[in-house]
Amino acid sequence: MNGAESLVQSLLAAGIDTCFANPGTSEMHFVSALDRHPGMRCVLGLFEGVVTGAADGYGRMMDKPAVTLLHCGPGLTNGMANLHNARRANTPVLNLIGDQADSIVALDPPLTADTTALARTLSVWTRRSNDPARVAADAMEGVRASMEGPGVASLILPSDAAWTEGGQIAPYLPPAAPTGPTGLAVDRAAAMLRNGKKTVLLLSNRALREAPLGIAGRIAHKTGARLMTLSQIPRLQAGQGRQPIERIPYNVDLSIKALAGVEQIIQIGAREPVNFFAYPDKPNVPMQDGCECLMVTRPDQDHLMALDAIAQAVGAHDAAPRPQRPDYGTLSGTPTPELLGAVINQTLPENAIIVDESVSYGRALLPSFWTAAPHDYLHLNGGSIGLGIPMATGAAVACPDRRVVALQADGSALYTVQGLWTQAREGLNVTTIILSNRRYAILQGEMTAVGANLGPAAQELFNLDRPATDWQALAKGFGIPATQATDIETLVDQINRANATPGPSLIELMI
Amino acid sequence: MNGAESLVQSLLAAGIDTCFANPGTSEMHFVSALDRHPGMRCVLGLFEGVVTGAADGYGRMMDKPAVTLLHCGPGLTNGMANLHNARRANTPVLNLIGDQADSIVALDPPLTADTTALARTLSVWTRRSNDPARVAADAMEGVRASMEGPGVASLILPSDAAWTEGGQIAPYLPPAAPTGPTGLAVDRAAAMLRNGKKTVLLLSNRALREAPLGIAGRIAHKTGARLMTLSQIPRLQAGQGRQPIERIPYNVDLSIKALAGVEQIIQIGAREPVNFFAYPDKPNVPMQDGCECLMVTRPDQDHLMALDAIAQAVGAHDAAPRPQRPDYGTLSGTPTPELLGAVINQTLPENAIIVDESVSYGRALLPSFWTAAPHDYLHLNGGSIGLGIPMATGAAVACPDRRVVALQADGSALYTVQGLWTQAREGLNVTTIILSNRRYAILQGEMTAVGANLGPAAQELFNLDRPATDWQALAKGFGIPATQATDIETLVDQINRANATPGPSLIELMI
Repeated sequence: MNGAESLVQSLLAAGIDTCFANPGTSEMHFVSALDRHPGMRCVLGLFEGVVTGAADGYGRMMDKPAVTLLHCGPGLTNGMANLHNARRANTPVLNLIGDQADSIVALDPPLTADTTALARTLSVWTRRSNDPARVAADAMEGVRASMEGPGVASLILPSDAAWTEGGQIAPYLPPAAPTGPTGLAVDRAAAMLRNGKKTVLLLSNRALREAPLGIAGRIAHKTGARLMTLSQIPRLQAGQGRQPIERIPYNVDLSIKALAGVEQIIQIGAREPVNFFAYPDKPNVPMQDGCECLMVTRPDQDHLMALDAIAQAVGAHDAAPRPQRPDYGTLSGTPTPELLGAVINQTLPENAIIVDESVSYGRALLPSFWTAAPHDYLHLNGGSIGLGIPMATGAAVACPDRRVVALQADGSALYTVQGLWTQAREGLNVTTIILSNRRYAILQGEMTAVGANLGPAAQELFNLDRPATDWQALAKGFGIPATQATDIETLVDQINRANATPGPSLIELMI
Repeated sequence: MNGAESLVQSLLAAGIDTCFANPGTSEMHFVSALDRHPGMRCVLGLFEGVVTGAADGYGRMMDKPAVTLLHCGPGLTNGMANLHNARRANTPVLNLIGDQADSIVALDPPLTADTTALARTLSVWTRRSNDPARVAADAMEGVRASMEGPGVASLILPSDAAWTEGGQIAPYLPPAAPTGPTGLAVDRAAAMLRNGKKTVLLLSNRALREAPLGIAGRIAHKTGARLMTLSQIPRLQAGQGRQPIERIPYNVDLSIKALAGVEQIIQIGAREPVNFFAYPDKPNVPMQDGCECLMVTRPDQDHLMALDAIAQAVGAHDAAPRPQRPDYGTLSGTPTPELLGAVINQTLPENAIIVDESVSYGRALLPSFWTAAPHDYLHLNGGSIGLGIPMATGAAVACPDRRVVALQADGSALYTVQGLWTQAREGLNVTTIILSNRRYAILQGEMTAVGANLGPAAQELFNLDRPATDWQALAKGFGIPATQATDIETLVDQINRANATPGPSLIELMI
């Protein structure tokens, strides 16, 4: 048994059975091992950014890693933007990066790059495993690290460690249970909730799942604290019957306004808020001066335990009343963000997954989803655009019985548009709605925010209408049926049709 | 004047007037400065890999850098695969990477990554320039470093250094003239050429331009040495009236065969040959044991001076006879690599640029180009696929009066297919011939080379025919007219038509 075979068998025994792949020559022995030891679902991406973004979507839905199969340093770099997003979403991912054999590295063949240094910049765990007897054991450590992080673990596999005999199957290493909060932190949080100051209970990561969110809602209901999350949302369980939660806006001025007057923030699995970018003469954080922040649980800790303890301490027994679904009437007219929110609210199938890379157009949509059918909501975390199509792909692979509805800005979609092909190949149940304004609207906004006019260079760099992308042709090119909607009535009809049709569809919504 | 304005003005004064860009928020002040100080041609890419690959093509044709405008760490990573190729081709490129303001970096906003560490892995020069008074001077050092390397220089520009007043215009720093070879090396090379042993004169980098190549041809003609280049070719001036040169094959067995019996290699601007990958039970280099290698000039040195000195020393005055153009007759039938070579030979316009990312199908095409119309030939250097479409784009921007003919494998094309949009937007004279076999043929070959059968996992990961990419639809999606050819007669007709039509065209050749 060679190193690659021991690796495949150990991964399968550990329940790691999905591999998003864009392999090259140095991964041939791993592919060959997959052929001899079946059980791994191999999903091909035409570009590595599709592979890693799909692994992010999969990991968010499964709470366990998929394997990414990447080719040497440059293959890794093609996937790094979406690994950055996975890192910021605390998603378990196991990268398997083939590399040059140890024997040839010193000769620096053309494809050689510093794969280890590159992987280290975004991984919670990185190892170059060059002993066939250790390859599987190293991979099991990587799996554990990715789940304990949770985060990106990177196993770099020189081809000779893959092809050399002496591989040894290694047992699954269960991740340690997440630790609870300290008693001191719980007591302090409870005291803060009782001291009469204006308080935000700030949740993120797995504190946004239905159960902890429900308890947080009871605490908020009892104490008057506001329930908020950060502007980037890894996975939120939302919809009818679930606890709604406010989002700190992305826009600097709006985020400062949202936290104006807030004297205390109690963090449950959430980092301290920070603005996305610095701007001249504006603060770097949205909190007002003197706002006290208390970290009760880090992202890797047990938020349910923390919230339970706080709820007990403050006597929070009753759920907050849930908002009523608005009566939207018959939706029609020219598209607006508000109408798009209403359309999604009305058309979303039970137990769907919303993937949101709507960028500027979709910033205020979240409240529309509070009263939609219960669903999971996945959002762009690290801010590196080009995640939406791949993440929708990975979420659909993870949850074949659920419909994925992807709200996708057009400019961002074009970074990793190849992901549509994987959706077609795998027959995935994804409805992609391209929000087509044919420009980088976010940059036009940012340009205005820095006080500059849009001159000829800015026009040249922000407008995408020369030529306008023909989305129906692009979708056809990748094997996906597509339509275009310019009004809300048509959109509703096309979404309902797409959601009812097995496999992927794409709708270009002119906004 | 802020840092960004001093930078734009200094670049323009230095003759750096082309910017391939995919900007984000942290680059807004630079864009705003471009608006106020016109003269920079801004070429937008929908994805950073297009931007960096275009800068590679531009730099190869111009021998001076274009600026790439990239957004923070993840934006850089999206462009790194083609920067890897530029690094391996010794192409001058100046990256301008916007980054988080110094004031906010310690707060680690979501988009923050270790940009400096990432850039260092592939740059000859990297600097984070956080003083507005130094920004322009740093950029001028970067320009010089990119030309002296030659290679990739990376200037990281925090947004506050761009927006803060105090910018100072800095003068162009001319690169030092390349150094000549040592007299010792020339004497040794001349002695080797006279000692009767089987000798290869191995040229690469700027030794592949017409003048040095002609002198090398005289040396070979006089001494019986073979003229060869490495399997990766940054830029070769080829065609009628120019000196032909053999290429060391990519395939390990063929490369060993090609160098069998060779006792000495004299390197002019070429590194020592190394195989692309290691394989079980095969050597890592193509040279036979005991082959002596002499480096006369490194890639950055003066090859013309070296070859002149050697030619004088061995008394090489006469040019080698040039090969006759074969009489191909009327070309027809089912496509084969040989016929494709003949078609390109017959249809290539005068002074065209061939961009070759034909991968497995095109490995033996080079001799067909020896007797085509004079042209420049650009090939994939670092081996990271997805360079072809971007490199053709950049070469066409550099040379608007020349036709670019791009031979493009289909699988590789899909990594950076967004580059077609930039060709349409800029109206570039590019004829792209997609070599469509709907599979990763190179991987099927490599799988066989490692002695494995193609099982179900390999089939799943190497075949691209489910669904088949609809290239005519994809091209239409990006605004480019496209046709399909299944036989050679049609191909000839379509190429002639495309070459005669201003602007880009795409032909899918079924192979």
